[in-house]
Amino acid sequence: MSAQTKTIGLIGGMGPAATLDFFDRILKRTKAVRDEDHLRVIIDNNTKVPSRDAFSKGEGPSPGAAIAASARGLQDAGADFIVMACNTAHAYEADIRAAITVPFLSMIDETVAAAAELRPERVGLLAADPCLRANLYQDACRKARLDLVLLPADSQRTAQELINRIKSGDTGDTVRRSMAVLAKKLEALGAEVIVAGCTEVPIVLTADDVDCELISSTDVLVEKSILFAGAELKA
Amino acid sequence: MSAQTKTIGLIGGMGPAATLDFFDRILKRTKAVRDEDHLRVIIDNNTKVPSRDAFSKGEGPSPGAAIAASARGLQDAGADFIVMACNTAHAYEADIRAAITVPFLSMIDETVAAAAELRPERVGLLAADPCLRANLYQDACRKARLDLVLLPADSQRTAQELINRIKSGDTGDTVRRSMAVLAKKLEALGAEVIVAGCTEVPIVLTADDVDCELISSTDVLVEKSILFAGAELKA
Repeated sequence: MSAQTKTIGLIGGMGPAATLDFFDRILKRTKAVRDEDHLRVIIDNNTKVPSRDAFSKGEGPSPGAAIAASARGLQDAGADFIVMACNTAHAYEADIRAAITVPFLSMIDETVAAAAELRPERVGLLAADPCLRANLYQDACRKARLDLVLLPADSQRTAQELINRIKSGDTGDTVRRSMAVLAKKLEALGAEVIVAGCTEVPIVLTADDVDCELISSTDVLVEKSILFAGAELKA
Repeated sequence: MSAQTKTIGLIGGMGPAATLDFFDRILKRTKAVRDEDHLRVIIDNNTKVPSRDAFSKGEGPSPGAAIAASARGLQDAGADFIVMACNTAHAYEADIRAAITVPFLSMIDETVAAAAELRPERVGLLAADPCLRANLYQDACRKARLDLVLLPADSQRTAQELINRIKSGDTGDTVRRSMAVLAKKLEALGAEVIVAGCTEVPIVLTADDVDCELISSTDVLVEKSILFAGAELKA
């Protein structure tokens, strides 16, 4: 089996903790005993991409070219398809697709498809500010005819602060509890499914923290990537 | 600072857990708050390299060409220097150096240099069978005039079994305790410093498990890589 699997190219670094988490989950979810049973994954932990947040506020250069160059570099290094461990950076999906000839699996599309399968009335979203400003989940949910619930402005400010703390390495109890409170708020607003639509979120939020279904954009793309690569999921 | 740092190219996949651990330690040891304070690291988790163990027993093709191709791919993708998260695979260091024009930092040389700084009478080594067969640490210690203590044959069999279990994802208490027993055996044989000379070993063995100094080949190369890249170590 192992010889015929595809090589995953992972655009990362936005942030590094989410990239590590994505890689960790790929290893944990792949059915494997020996080294060679695992998938080949080429990762560009590219922390030098211009700030997505600054650009989305009109305060800096576009990250698009740097992200596209990462994608191309991964393809040249042997990746058979490309994924990206950052929801927000999917605002530059067109740049990526223009730079490569191999497939790109969209975290946004796969996550919304996974949410749609549960046929919820309303989907709650935990996402970073620049991701919301880029309307990535809003557009994808509209296409999938899913009703989206966002946090009120003050809670969204807290969400962004928590994401920043996770990016700086703080995954302690306070951050965990505060993120769970935000998820509960989305439930109170009628969400039947909550999408962890930022790869920092599932680092601290688990299914046990909410009563409704939690869909982790990381887990969705990890599983899809393993299957697309031709390996099996660990039971 | 961040713009001038060098990009690390990490040859990994031998095994994947050790590669994840190496990446994790790079993130934990780098002084950083925001994404862009972290180093850019390009990782080839290349699990499709022919078995080092089989080749060292004369039973399979050489892994040299695949490892060299990984190194070259990392350089082409933008790595300013190359490191490898596997001691055993340093048997193919010459292939790597022949394939790249950027520097290669040797885990073996850096680890032995760190051990030599402690000026021990005797250095105990925990390593995998094919690493021992390649005489990597034996040769480096001879050059550094360090007296090396190896495990007796039956304990070495246990060490290799434990390494295989860690590679398969088992990092539980039994594996931890058994690895600590082997370290204690090296102490009983007169080791004043123990070198964890296999990147699977520091996943389960910590300084608390031994009375003498423990030198993790992973930690040594992680710290050296961060400094060589031009970033600072977290205090």
